[in-house]
Amino acid sequence: MPTYRLDLAYIGADFHGYARQPGLRTIQGEVENVLAPYTGGAPTVVAGRTDRGVHAAQQVVSFSCDEIDTARVVRSLNGQLAPQVAALSLAEVPDDFSARFSATGRAYRYRIKNADVHDPLIAATTWTYERPLDVDAMNHAIAPLVGRHDFVAFCRKQDGLSTEREVFWIRWRRDGDMVELSIGANSFCHQMVRSIVGASVEVGCGRISPDSVQAILASSERHRSAGAVPAHGLVLVAIAYDYEPLARPSWVPEAS
Amino acid sequence: MPTYRLDLAYIGADFHGYARQPGLRTIQGEVENVLAPYTGGAPTVVAGRTDRGVHAAQQVVSFSCDEIDTARVVRSLNGQLAPQVAALSLAEVPDDFSARFSATGRAYRYRIKNADVHDPLIAATTWTYERPLDVDAMNHAIAPLVGRHDFVAFCRKQDGLSTEREVFWIRWRRDGDMVELSIGANSFCHQMVRSIVGASVEVGCGRISPDSVQAILASSERHRSAGAVPAHGLVLVAIAYDYEPLARPSWVPEAS
Repeated sequence: MPTYRLDLAYIGADFHGYARQPGLRTIQGEVENVLAPYTGGAPTVVAGRTDRGVHAAQQVVSFSCDEIDTARVVRSLNGQLAPQVAALSLAEVPDDFSARFSATGRAYRYRIKNADVHDPLIAATTWTYERPLDVDAMNHAIAPLVGRHDFVAFCRKQDGLSTEREVFWIRWRRDGDMVELSIGANSFCHQMVRSIVGASVEVGCGRISPDSVQAILASSERHRSAGAVPAHGLVLVAIAYDYEPLARPSWVPEAS
Repeated sequence: MPTYRLDLAYIGADFHGYARQPGLRTIQGEVENVLAPYTGGAPTVVAGRTDRGVHAAQQVVSFSCDEIDTARVVRSLNGQLAPQVAALSLAEVPDDFSARFSATGRAYRYRIKNADVHDPLIAATTWTYERPLDVDAMNHAIAPLVGRHDFVAFCRKQDGLSTEREVFWIRWRRDGDMVELSIGANSFCHQMVRSIVGASVEVGCGRISPDSVQAILASSERHRSAGAVPAHGLVLVAIAYDYEPLARPSWVPEAS
């Protein structure tokens, strides 16, 4: 049976996260339902299991089934799942391809509208935070996170699973009242990006010193900022494979 | 009684347009309900009555009532109407100020994602259109619309009302697969922007020649493109008053 790679984008608001859950509307559930006539309901594999409310500009799914008309399946997915989910592409890949285990990197962004009032036109994908944020202090604070570390202090610990990860880059920038994080890593622990955003915001508004982020990392104790920021500012933006390097935004300096 | 100017932004998806209608959820209805304790339910005046599904990045409303604590009313509006509506500001203005009749200009944008597949993260404010659009041809076609003309061919005629308007600028641009119109005018007839977008798209995909837009204008006959494009790509972006010139995007050349 051939193996297929399906690239998706979705807005998470109306779903209970990516992963299938009985009786709840999930992205995996909706996609597998549309694929069921071809796969016979066999499960799919995903690159990044996003939490409830988190969005994706690129998500990768793999599955095996008898040969399919990929253009037709893409039309079927888009016809049934628009506008919340989009099937960006579908192609046959080598048999040993796994959306999850072949992935060599993932990148996320987190957007904060740093203003008194939210913007209704982008409120679905942006967290509004009132207190002025010092982006230079935030960048100073997170710089030590680059490299291979145990990120247990910045994640929801799941027993028996390693919390060691390699962060390729991490950087905040400000554009007017929009403050945005870009982070790339080999993979991410549960709630790792939001925990780092939470700690960054505490630095940015002066509640903790920039140096304390490195101290939190070194402490290996789960920090109280973990999970403190809402999911809807977070977007999975890229997945990398051996043949497809991780897309780093042009505004992120090489040394981040 | 003092007069107040309230600036709003909203996403139109969940409303039956701006203007109050019995039994339907409208932006005017929701805003006037929150203001009712202060205004006693007196009607408000609006700069631009947007249609069902149309959004606003800036909308201006005026009303008179006994003196109010403006900061408190803004908090009340944002507390009750977020995230679909935002109260951007509220201030006392001269007694002769009318959000509608004092306005000297309005500007709109219309966004088209010119691609096979929609983008779920921006689908709420962007129309997805598959056929490749020639933006140079579209700009050539619409250039004759600048100036004072009878726009009856590009609007839903309402008996007894003039359809003469002055267009200050009109311009399309492409940024990757995003194609965007900016248009500024003293005011707009009903469905005027969407009718111009419809005719532009017919030019852009080669269905009609660029020269035909000027011919449609000159014909003074309502063109079949009127109302042909969906509302959700349209955003009211700016209102101008004597003391506040109409904000023209930096990418629009002076001669447009």
